[in-house]
Amino acid sequence: MNRRARRKEKTLRRIEDAGWSLFTSRGFEATSTRSIAEAADIAAGTLFNYFPEKRSLLIHLMRGQIDRALDEAFATMAESTLEKELTHVFSALNRCYAKERRLSRVFVKELLFTDGQRRAESAAWTFNLLKRVANIVSNAQRRGELDASIEPMAAAQQVFSIHYFGLVTWLGGTIPSQAVQEEQFTASLRLLLRGLRRSAA
Amino acid sequence: MNRRARRKEKTLRRIEDAGWSLFTSRGFEATSTRSIAEAADIAAGTLFNYFPEKRSLLIHLMRGQIDRALDEAFATMAESTLEKELTHVFSALNRCYAKERRLSRVFVKELLFTDGQRRAESAAWTFNLLKRVANIVSNAQRRGELDASIEPMAAAQQVFSIHYFGLVTWLGGTIPSQAVQEEQFTASLRLLLRGLRRSAA
Repeated sequence: MNRRARRKEKTLRRIEDAGWSLFTSRGFEATSTRSIAEAADIAAGTLFNYFPEKRSLLIHLMRGQIDRALDEAFATMAESTLEKELTHVFSALNRCYAKERRLSRVFVKELLFTDGQRRAESAAWTFNLLKRVANIVSNAQRRGELDASIEPMAAAQQVFSIHYFGLVTWLGGTIPSQAVQEEQFTASLRLLLRGLRRSAA
Repeated sequence: MNRRARRKEKTLRRIEDAGWSLFTSRGFEATSTRSIAEAADIAAGTLFNYFPEKRSLLIHLMRGQIDRALDEAFATMAESTLEKELTHVFSALNRCYAKERRLSRVFVKELLFTDGQRRAESAAWTFNLLKRVANIVSNAQRRGELDASIEPMAAAQQVFSIHYFGLVTWLGGTIPSQAVQEEQFTASLRLLLRGLRRSAA
């Protein structure tokens, strides 16, 4: 890394630290871009070059938190059943959202409604998460637990849909607690595994 | 209905007409509450009494559109298979969102993130929609198409989760078109019907 790249990296760290500290202490709405620039000891224009909107900084920070939580969850996942593996991963994800519930609410609300370049980034990030879930599905197929003819990405999308609706209703306050969300996730997962159709037997 | 109730009803209609006309022509962001009050020929304070926030009026209007579309879809639904019945209903819902895509985007984004009294209303509205889907599931159980031991509301929630994730990714621009969303919905529904597990046979 040359000197210029190192300096850029250092500025980014300062913005991240300032943003996270202000967002978590004051909340997203009450934090101005001016106060972030001041706390990071940079010019407002410099902050704008890195993050043209306050919400792009929040999305960047939340994605960082989630990526770290997921990396750890995948690294500590013992091979067992599909249900246990998925519960392990999505519980880690949920704990991450629960730590900063108010910020998570803003994040989930904004993530899929960004435009332009940020939208492509969000889509790529969601796709990457789906691929990691699809890997869990593939492994269960190799173990003979799941039907081998199922498209892993289709199954992953379904699992993610269940998680996402639970997450939105929990963050939005429609369901009372994260515990209820996790119970519903498990019940839905079991339903998905067995299927709705009346068995021939 | 007494005179006072009739007057209230008339004022509400005027607000609805003014709001819908301005939102659909100018967009949500570009419409001020002042311009709605002017177009409805009422005082700003009167508008505030009916809808304290601009977005509560949008949510009210979009729910009205959706309720009418769903009433019609349920009224014209011929009894056939679960897949066909659900596709009939959710296609009607999707067409309703497609008619005013930009407003739908704001609606979906705001709906589950309202607070206080509006939140209870949103939760009740979503619950009611889930109950109607659960009815379709119950009918399929009575026909012997689905396993009778499945909780209809649990199945309805799963179907709705699939719809919702597709809707959000379509409105957010992550998937290219509504046609792709509908294909994914059908594929997901089939997956849910058969289940992921390897059949014993």
